Amino acid sequence: MRRGNVYQIANGHMGYRGTLDEFGPDECVAVTLAGIFDRVGDAWREPVNAPNGAYTSVEVDGVALSALGANVVQHRQTLRFRNAEFERETVFDVNGTRVTLRSSRFLSIVQPSLGVVCVEVVCDKPAEVTIRTGIDFNIWDLNGPHLRELAATRRDGDVLCVEGRTHESGRRVAVAEAIAADFGTGTNVASDKRNLHVITLRAEAGRPCAFTKFFAVSTGDDKAATAEVAIATVTAARRDGPDAQRAAHAAAWADRWRRCDVAIEGDPAAQLALRYSVLQLLMVAPVDGSANSIPARALSGQAYKGAVFWDTEMFMFPFFLHAYPAKAVELLRYRIRTLDGARRKAATEGPGYRGAFYAWESQDTGDDACTYFNIGDPITGRELRTHFRDKQVHISGDIAIAMWRYFEVTGDDSLLLEGGAEVILECARFYYSYIHFKKDRGLYEVLDVIGPDEYHERVNNNAFTNMVVREAFVIAGVTVDHLSRNHPEALKALLRKTGIADELPGFADAAARLYVPPVDKETGVIEQFEGYFKLRDATVEELRAKMVHPNEYFGASQGLAVPTKLIKQADVVMMLSLFKSRFPTATKRANWLYYEPRTEHGSSLSACAYALVATEFGDLDSAYRYFLKTAEIDLKARYKSYVGTTFMGGSHPAANGGAWMTAVLGFGGVQADDRHVAIEPRLPSKWNALEFGLDYKGDRFRVRIDGKSVAITAGPANRAAHTFTVSGTEFTVAPADALTVPIEAGRAFAAGNRESEAASSTPK
Amino acid sequence: MRRGNVYQIANGHMGYRGTLDEFGPDECVAVTLAGIFDRVGDAWREPVNAPNGAYTSVEVDGVALSALGANVVQHRQTLRFRNAEFERETVFDVNGTRVTLRSSRFLSIVQPSLGVVCVEVVCDKPAEVTIRTGIDFNIWDLNGPHLRELAATRRDGDVLCVEGRTHESGRRVAVAEAIAADFGTGTNVASDKRNLHVITLRAEAGRPCAFTKFFAVSTGDDKAATAEVAIATVTAARRDGPDAQRAAHAAAWADRWRRCDVAIEGDPAAQLALRYSVLQLLMVAPVDGSANSIPARALSGQAYKGAVFWDTEMFMFPFFLHAYPAKAVELLRYRIRTLDGARRKAATEGPGYRGAFYAWESQDTGDDACTYFNIGDPITGRELRTHFRDKQVHISGDIAIAMWRYFEVTGDDSLLLEGGAEVILECARFYYSYIHFKKDRGLYEVLDVIGPDEYHERVNNNAFTNMVVREAFVIAGVTVDHLSRNHPEALKALLRKTGIADELPGFADAAARLYVPPVDKETGVIEQFEGYFKLRDATVEELRAKMVHPNEYFGASQGLAVPTKLIKQADVVMMLSLFKSRFPTATKRANWLYYEPRTEHGSSLSACAYALVATEFGDLDSAYRYFLKTAEIDLKARYKSYVGTTFMGGSHPAANGGAWMTAVLGFGGVQADDRHVAIEPRLPSKWNALEFGLDYKGDRFRVRIDGKSVAITAGPANRAAHTFTVSGTEFTVAPADALTVPIEAGRAFAAGNRESEAASSTPK
Repeated sequence: MRRGNVYQIANGHMGYRGTLDEFGPDECVAVTLAGIFDRVGDAWREPVNAPNGAYTSVEVDGVALSALGANVVQHRQTLRFRNAEFERETVFDVNGTRVTLRSSRFLSIVQPSLGVVCVEVVCDKPAEVTIRTGIDFNIWDLNGPHLRELAATRRDGDVLCVEGRTHESGRRVAVAEAIAADFGTGTNVASDKRNLHVITLRAEAGRPCAFTKFFAVSTGDDKAATAEVAIATVTAARRDGPDAQRAAHAAAWADRWRRCDVAIEGDPAAQLALRYSVLQLLMVAPVDGSANSIPARALSGQAYKGAVFWDTEMFMFPFFLHAYPAKAVELLRYRIRTLDGARRKAATEGPGYRGAFYAWESQDTGDDACTYFNIGDPITGRELRTHFRDKQVHISGDIAIAMWRYFEVTGDDSLLLEGGAEVILECARFYYSYIHFKKDRGLYEVLDVIGPDEYHERVNNNAFTNMVVREAFVIAGVTVDHLSRNHPEALKALLRKTGIADELPGFADAAARLYVPPVDKETGVIEQFEGYFKLRDATVEELRAKMVHPNEYFGASQGLAVPTKLIKQADVVMMLSLFKSRFPTATKRANWLYYEPRTEHGSSLSACAYALVATEFGDLDSAYRYFLKTAEIDLKARYKSYVGTTFMGGSHPAANGGAWMTAVLGFGGVQADDRHVAIEPRLPSKWNALEFGLDYKGDRFRVRIDGKSVAITAGPANRAAHTFTVSGTEFTVAPADALTVPIEAGRAFAAGNRESEAASSTPK
Repeated sequence: MRRGNVYQIANGHMGYRGTLDEFGPDECVAVTLAGIFDRVGDAWREPVNAPNGAYTSVEVDGVALSALGANVVQHRQTLRFRNAEFERETVFDVNGTRVTLRSSRFLSIVQPSLGVVCVEVVCDKPAEVTIRTGIDFNIWDLNGPHLRELAATRRDGDVLCVEGRTHESGRRVAVAEAIAADFGTGTNVASDKRNLHVITLRAEAGRPCAFTKFFAVSTGDDKAATAEVAIATVTAARRDGPDAQRAAHAAAWADRWRRCDVAIEGDPAAQLALRYSVLQLLMVAPVDGSANSIPARALSGQAYKGAVFWDTEMFMFPFFLHAYPAKAVELLRYRIRTLDGARRKAATEGPGYRGAFYAWESQDTGDDACTYFNIGDPITGRELRTHFRDKQVHISGDIAIAMWRYFEVTGDDSLLLEGGAEVILECARFYYSYIHFKKDRGLYEVLDVIGPDEYHERVNNNAFTNMVVREAFVIAGVTVDHLSRNHPEALKALLRKTGIADELPGFADAAARLYVPPVDKETGVIEQFEGYFKLRDATVEELRAKMVHPNEYFGASQGLAVPTKLIKQADVVMMLSLFKSRFPTATKRANWLYYEPRTEHGSSLSACAYALVATEFGDLDSAYRYFLKTAEIDLKARYKSYVGTTFMGGSHPAANGGAWMTAVLGFGGVQADDRHVAIEPRLPSKWNALEFGLDYKGDRFRVRIDGKSVAITAGPANRAAHTFTVSGTEFTVAPADALTVPIEAGRAFAAGNRESEAASSTPK
């Protein structure tokens, strides 16, 4: 199960779990599609898994080869980071004949519906080999089956196709497959939910029997067209041959790595984990123009309903924003596209709610896939009422913040005009309909919410949430200001469309008077929510000892953690990370020290917040520890797969994003806003250097930090000079500039040394 | 267990369960004391049970007599309503000898520390009889033992004493016992936690061996004094003899019945149940001057921690207010006495709470005995978090309403001056600190509460609660008005003491703008709380079928009823009953019909609300059915004894009060306010007549309703004329007046016929 996550490949359109050619549903093979969902009866709505066009089983001298068999002599599988290609090599002993089965597969990022698999069988003695390859439509589903009327056909002699439609919306999913082999394509046999080429041949000793599979997965509403597209794709791919496909794919990957790679010198383990994390993010980045986002378990299967959570904006978005803004655009367009779903949620969720209350678990329409009873209780076998859907209101503000951050960092306001400003205003509108004014305190309060720490539901004035809500009101104000100065007509149209003009003074009032839990004067600690300090202290071990079932959930309303200070994940610390420029170092340290021993890290989102804040106050050892925890989460795969009775295994793209954030924003100390990019390096002691790409205001930079200096290289195609502040000193970096700023003991010198004489940038 | 409730006796100072002379803790004998509480370790704080001074066991020819023995030939036990005296007669066959054991016991209402027991043993053949009688200090406790250092002593030759002190506060509890017997007092044997007289005698055939026991229970802080008081009491009682004690007791009871009896002609079952209900209320009415109240399970034991709930003000108080105002005064004084406890609760319970947040479960100090984890979960063996303590905020308003009602109906404002006005203002202050203003609605809201229906916790804008809160603000206003007109100095002092003057405009604003869920225009139904209509419908049977444990609790936050419309008890209907003059008949009918099938009646408080509202819209059959359910609850004793793992058996004085309310206020149609007493009779068809006493503005009346007329007889000692409105027509009733108003089909004629020529009252 977990290895299927670790070795998965994906291309934004689909994910293919790291399973082996001969595997089927019992081994959790899944071709998970982005953006297409289905629901069967009352079960959870989840992404659709396509028929598996990469299926191949091989029989040698009547013995079927399986990597799970007893006759395996040797097995190796490899995920190539360079171009996201999966390889396997398994050696079998078939009654004395040594058989080697090799294959490689990739999902093209230039032609996202296409997958290419190269298979090779070598026997050390002559042997009878039967190859069954084609499309397996025994589909592994958590809450399926999602495809009905599945039909296997053959076209143009040897192109196989399996096509079906979803239950809920009747959308078509078609998989086509074609093979290229010098021994022909055999006969077509469709049975047992497989549509196969069956090829029998006599293998010569030591001579590989090799063939290439091309499969394509297309979706659409038109029956014929959907299949035709898939068939045409594989036919064309076969015509062009695998080398051409691979070359285009590899070139595109090379470009991605040039942009996004982060190099760590002196720490191979960290380097591996971080590159793996970046690979994951790049593999699941939405296809350009798709306006899709990245689900919490990405494309690793159907866990978490394939839904998009706050994870995306808070943990993945920063990577794309700083390293690959074109993909950040897709993530935000997804929220623009689903704004109506958020409006529907507000209109139906609570009394008098207005504006945009984004789905806690967002799928294709933006309606909330999160159920009111979202966690199975293993003790009673019943579902627990959780308030994730109705009370985790920070989601709307998280989105508004990301939307505004995109403009701040890229300087590109086109998304605001495309619907981003509307998203921001509708989020503020929702909050204004949600908050209450406390007359005797003269303040607005945010009541009855769940903050990031989901073990404490329905709390009042959660520090994180209140900060986010207040920020949403502030952002609504500056958005209107920006539009009124720069796009007055667009603003007029937006106000007319939304009818929100009369509400703007209320937003401004709320921005000014929204209560945020204060920093305690004596301890420096911020109370996570009203009443938190009154709860009793408890350790995870103490609570575990009270469990009556090993998968018991600690939260909901009666969970063991609820009456205690034990929190699931960073909450105040997450707030300090998100709003790091607003709080002094002492506050960060005090809260980190207070909350860290009280945090279970029951969420994969927790460690990176602790890592990031630890870099802020200079505890680099702790930061490094949490960084590794974050960066290695999928590689080490020690996470829990069940919460209550709910399966939640799969990959952790938010942690992948958190690893990047910790490396670049944390240790690299990068902080960009509309004015400049600040860099305050604080590398872990074992890192000799850190090098990464950075996008800022549409221009590209390469930054290299070592113990002595920060080197900033501006892209030759950059269009403007930009301000960088290295350890407090400002520099202007013009196109093609290469600036090296000496630093000592974490402080930059007042002046930088320039490699380029032509540099126009000067220290200010 | 239940019979011990049915046959209990009490006198306000203590209760004695309806157990038999020879019983001990295994049979749940309890002498439960009013107003003295103790807590052992972390267990629940609960009332103290005293040593049992009424203990007697009898041995005949070496055979111990027990009503639970196999040799019982016949047993009868009787509770005499007339003077709250318990009697038993048991006939045993002891190896061929027929032995009759008779006893009677009463707890004096003129000398509340005193109990008197008369015992008689008769054998039909000569026999050896051994009588062991004295004080049994094997005490039955739910969460005890509460008395430590229990010591048995003997004084003045034959007066026995057992004395101990509570754990928590070290208060002394002493029980003294003395017997009067023509065969002497035998020898004193103190062993096995019993301090006994042991008398052995030869009984002659047919000749009773009779003796009288006097026991007294006193409490105090001084060791010697406490015992001395008890000893002096029994010594004096023995000197005066049982007949004198009984005569004084009986005379006092006769007076109570004269005041409070309700006669029903034509329906013996209803008569019995209603008299039983009134008896219960009169037995547990607080001792004059004690400023005690009546716990939810009265003095029937330690269930419900001996705590006073809203039950008292909402369900018992009306009986005393209308029939026995001197006792209503004690109930209210209890709330004045515990005001500081309510202030402490507000100060500690929530952020920024001020004023008086009365305890949900109030004991001697007014601090809340209700725990945050108040119900044991039989499935996990853990305690469930319930929000009874922190969210059932209507309690403060219930008290403010009762406080004001007392003044309205009695015209006596002395309680307001004694602290009642302070209670009212502090309750309003609490509410002002609790409510929120919704700027976009222009209304105050009451968020996050539990209404009467405890199966739905933490709801917003519960109709009942919002009405009560608004009423508290209104009452605060009229209280200040009243004081400013009539007691300006007292008002000044009160405002100075409380510093509340600046807050009064806020109270007035809240009174004017507090949101109350509206009557739906189409259906006439009021939504119990925001979101109630969205819940799914479910029957009790459906939920029972899902139970995984028979004592599973339906509420808390994850109970089976929570996501459904099934409610524990009357909530909107309770609101319509409490505020019956504010809503039209059609609204009462619509809500009754809507909510009635959705009500489990899992609380003994539910049936009488349905009965009362049914009388309002003329469904007398349903009203009668619910009346009997209420009135017979303790007689039939079919209630559940466990909720979760929590024992809650015991008597139901609130239901007793509800029975009286239904008879007099419901069927009798009595509604008194500061202007008049309105009577709109609507008797059940089988009732030929209903007759009851009524106190109004310090004067007394007797009202008799039959099918043809309403007869009102004013007490000869009345001091003023008062207005009565019979079926819409007003009459003035002067002292000693006897007015008969003919009615027909539930409507009064325009004029009444007077029996007394001297009557000065005339129809208006």
